[in-house]
Amino acid sequence: MIAPPPATADTAIAWIDHAASPLDSEPVSTDASAGRILADAVRADAAIPLADCAAVDGFAVRAAETVGASPYNPLALPLIAVAAGEPMPVQTDAVVALEMAEPAGAGMFECVEPVAPGDNVWPAGSVAMPGAVLAVKGARLDPRHIGLLIGAGISVVPAVRRPRVRIVTAPPHRVRDRNGAMIRAAAARDGGLVELTVADRTRAGIAHSLTAGQADIVLVIGGTGPGADDHAADALRSAGELALHGVALRPGGTVGLGRIGRATLVVLLPGPPPGCLFGYEVLAGRAIRRLGGRHPRLPHPLRAMTVARKIVSAIGASEFCPVRRVADDTVEPLPSFAAAGLMSAAAGDGFVIVPATSEGYPEGSTVTVHLYEGS
Amino acid sequence: MIAPPPATADTAIAWIDHAASPLDSEPVSTDASAGRILADAVRADAAIPLADCAAVDGFAVRAAETVGASPYNPLALPLIAVAAGEPMPVQTDAVVALEMAEPAGAGMFECVEPVAPGDNVWPAGSVAMPGAVLAVKGARLDPRHIGLLIGAGISVVPAVRRPRVRIVTAPPHRVRDRNGAMIRAAAARDGGLVELTVADRTRAGIAHSLTAGQADIVLVIGGTGPGADDHAADALRSAGELALHGVALRPGGTVGLGRIGRATLVVLLPGPPPGCLFGYEVLAGRAIRRLGGRHPRLPHPLRAMTVARKIVSAIGASEFCPVRRVADDTVEPLPSFAAAGLMSAAAGDGFVIVPATSEGYPEGSTVTVHLYEGS
Repeated sequence: MIAPPPATADTAIAWIDHAASPLDSEPVSTDASAGRILADAVRADAAIPLADCAAVDGFAVRAAETVGASPYNPLALPLIAVAAGEPMPVQTDAVVALEMAEPAGAGMFECVEPVAPGDNVWPAGSVAMPGAVLAVKGARLDPRHIGLLIGAGISVVPAVRRPRVRIVTAPPHRVRDRNGAMIRAAAARDGGLVELTVADRTRAGIAHSLTAGQADIVLVIGGTGPGADDHAADALRSAGELALHGVALRPGGTVGLGRIGRATLVVLLPGPPPGCLFGYEVLAGRAIRRLGGRHPRLPHPLRAMTVARKIVSAIGASEFCPVRRVADDTVEPLPSFAAAGLMSAAAGDGFVIVPATSEGYPEGSTVTVHLYEGS
Repeated sequence: MIAPPPATADTAIAWIDHAASPLDSEPVSTDASAGRILADAVRADAAIPLADCAAVDGFAVRAAETVGASPYNPLALPLIAVAAGEPMPVQTDAVVALEMAEPAGAGMFECVEPVAPGDNVWPAGSVAMPGAVLAVKGARLDPRHIGLLIGAGISVVPAVRRPRVRIVTAPPHRVRDRNGAMIRAAAARDGGLVELTVADRTRAGIAHSLTAGQADIVLVIGGTGPGADDHAADALRSAGELALHGVALRPGGTVGLGRIGRATLVVLLPGPPPGCLFGYEVLAGRAIRRLGGRHPRLPHPLRAMTVARKIVSAIGASEFCPVRRVADDTVEPLPSFAAAGLMSAAAGDGFVIVPATSEGYPEGSTVTVHLYEGS
């Protein structure tokens, strides 16, 4: 039962990065594209704006006709109302802003200040010429892109297909599953289309779930350890390839990586929830983020902060260390995952990952904190 | 047509903060609670763990029986396998880790090192005693909370009801709506349950849409200006209360705020997309975030960065200034929203909001940048 030395976290990450590339492109309605990743750059079909447009609400004029206008010499001009964004009416070349004008009755208005040609006009093509890139390959579409693309008349965009994630949870006999909903939420956050199933905790049961249905990645939860009812590694060996079993993560050291056929990645995650979550974030989530074309790093914003008390970690494994914010740019460690399970993570404002080669950080040092949303 | 001086952004924000409070609580399945905001703290019903549990995979023993064990004096003990997280079997008080033991046949294993009572045991109540807070009021639930709560047997949590947002877009006659999908994506990002409708750009048409159906907040897009076909403010006056019209935002100066009855907030957003989006982010989005119990600030992560070129802004309005990252902690301004519309926002990595009292920031100064996700 003496296990081989585990792979380093870097080795496991390199395996994931080699095995997981962005999936193919699919057309997606721009209306419903929030959060999707562009598989290719999107370019303007036509100039933006297409024609000269009013830049403000007001009255379109020929600038030459406003020469000499002043409060002492108001000029009556034809009232041709234009709203900001509307094309300029024919034979006009400037806009008198609404607040600089008074209606004068009989379809006329009074102009009290001259304008020059082009004043308050948004010239055709000034935002983009045909063929200009409106959104780059790899962009994660958000409201500003949707507004720009819809405005440019682009109703469909090429998006990286969302990874199909099958979560197979194999809790011990007579034990309620504690991980499925947690990992489903994490995989959905990372852009996965998630299906969750519960498998028999037997070699055959897990092997069956590994190959049932179609998925780009299967996450098996539980049964990764060396115990008598731990069948995940054997099940993967029988259904496909177990490339790597045992990674120097604390918690999460019994993680495994492999694949079924050419197209389906498999990540084996430990049953104890802290190791399951940390193994997910560092390895399984990375694979899902890569498949979906996202940046592979953990999705939490990073911030350099000071530690108010030393962070202790044993050499030999990358360790998840929950921290709590004690001042704007200062954190202190919380009890470890090993001592307090998910309680520390839930009570924390973020976490520090201490590399395997480090014993931690002394009080007052600067560390990179992964901050939870809303913290 | 001379407009009154607009309200300051701070005045408008104060109005929103007074008018919008977190909605009532509703029970939500913990399984499906990702992203929801807790309306109350969730406490442990029972101790966690409920009983002493194994902290590692191994064999449960009575510590007293391991006294004297060594590689030179292996002791054969009954093989009582336990997995990490399982309750300790009766009459055992320590765990010999799997890697420190060898099976010895006939239901026995060889112990080569003594253990003390409590070694590798996770004591009952060590994570939480009954009544301990597992997740605080206001927490935004994410995978770690879901894992902790499911593990604690809590299947339903009290969450702030998601705000029902009705978006009423009233594009000019014969003009395609350019804003609805953009603002729907933003409101969904902020936790809203969004319904999008297109209204006739008439006073009656908008007034009808304001009162049709049930919503916690209605966003009317378009028709906020002083032009002849701008009916949003009049429609709100006739259907309810227009509290404020005109806010010193650039773009977005024609924003309006009000309500219908006691329960429904209304935000009027300008039709030109840049002002529509900025008005949304600063005011309408703030209201939605507050109604849903979220932090009211803009949802983009903040970072102090250096400006490589000066940012210019005219005094008198809070201005949205798109910026692009040119080095890890350095940004430069992009053409303004006024000059380039949403193109600058889409091409940028974030934005700076220059307050109404400032003319901008000189080259080399430090500014607070709102960073877009993925930048």
